[in-house]
Amino acid sequence: MEEMVALTLTLLLERGYDNTPMSLLAKTLGLTKPGVYHHFKSKENLLYTVHKHTLKRKLIPILDKAEREADPMERLKIFMLEFTAMMTRDPSPGVLIREARRLSPEHLEEFRKVWRRQFELVRGAIAKLQNEGRCRKDVNPTFAAFAAINLVTWTFEWFDYSRPHAADEVAKTLLAVFMNGIVGSSQQDSK
Amino acid sequence: MEEMVALTLTLLLERGYDNTPMSLLAKTLGLTKPGVYHHFKSKENLLYTVHKHTLKRKLIPILDKAEREADPMERLKIFMLEFTAMMTRDPSPGVLIREARRLSPEHLEEFRKVWRRQFELVRGAIAKLQNEGRCRKDVNPTFAAFAAINLVTWTFEWFDYSRPHAADEVAKTLLAVFMNGIVGSSQQDSK
Repeated sequence: MEEMVALTLTLLLERGYDNTPMSLLAKTLGLTKPGVYHHFKSKENLLYTVHKHTLKRKLIPILDKAEREADPMERLKIFMLEFTAMMTRDPSPGVLIREARRLSPEHLEEFRKVWRRQFELVRGAIAKLQNEGRCRKDVNPTFAAFAAINLVTWTFEWFDYSRPHAADEVAKTLLAVFMNGIVGSSQQDSK
Repeated sequence: MEEMVALTLTLLLERGYDNTPMSLLAKTLGLTKPGVYHHFKSKENLLYTVHKHTLKRKLIPILDKAEREADPMERLKIFMLEFTAMMTRDPSPGVLIREARRLSPEHLEEFRKVWRRQFELVRGAIAKLQNEGRCRKDVNPTFAAFAAINLVTWTFEWFDYSRPHAADEVAKTLLAVFMNGIVGSSQQDSK
């Protein structure tokens, strides 16, 4: 399974979903074309299988870990740092996000549940910090949660994966910008 | 030109580039299929024409305006507010970003010059603020610039375009998070 997922992701990353025919996937996975259809039913179902496996192995453990943390500030920090580490470690989660529109509506809905859980983790933590007076009041928790998730998700569009040692500094900058952004009292230089 | 661009963008938004055949584009634009090829040479060239027009009309004026502002803090604010307003006003810039990978390498390179100009505007302003002691030192200007641009660019993936009145609050939240994030002295609640 691990190897199948890795090989499929490498192909999708190099060629994109639309330019990766099932015949090439079959060849890369060491299967015949009937064999790959027997295992995965369709190309969409192969994408779904790889995406589901990656969510289970990479994103869900981060959500589990963050949710176990009772303090909303620490919960946000754990989420931001680990999610950034995941996105900068290798480009495969990025390619799955990019190709998510190729999934069937049913499969997309299944993954939306995980993305909603991620969103609620962040939104809930921000709202709790506001209630406790530990977070700026002029920040809308819903939009700030989208901001935090976008800040990290789209690193794959610009991160240079040939410079893996930069990942820590990216994580530190994103965390500093976001946490300070929501926590600090109004620090804007109003000139 | 305006109408051609608007009609093409509406189709791309509804159907995606890959699912929009030239025959349908021709029909929507009131042209014959030979007519549309005569005008635009290829589907890729039509996408390029529409993208170029949109950059010229929407993004470049924001860069021009921000660059005319001498104060780096004000420059960042102008950029963040106007760029967010542009991305939340209608979803067409979003669909062009999403479909940019369909462009030829030459056309993509042409647009990358504009995106680099946008990036340098933000990175330069942050670096200048750091030199002047008006911005946190633990923020990497390059990664913070990517953060600012990502924060705004990807609003189109979550913004609810049926609720246009929310755009102002989105802009305010993104500005508050980012400006406070880079400007505030270390405000993180270290627990």
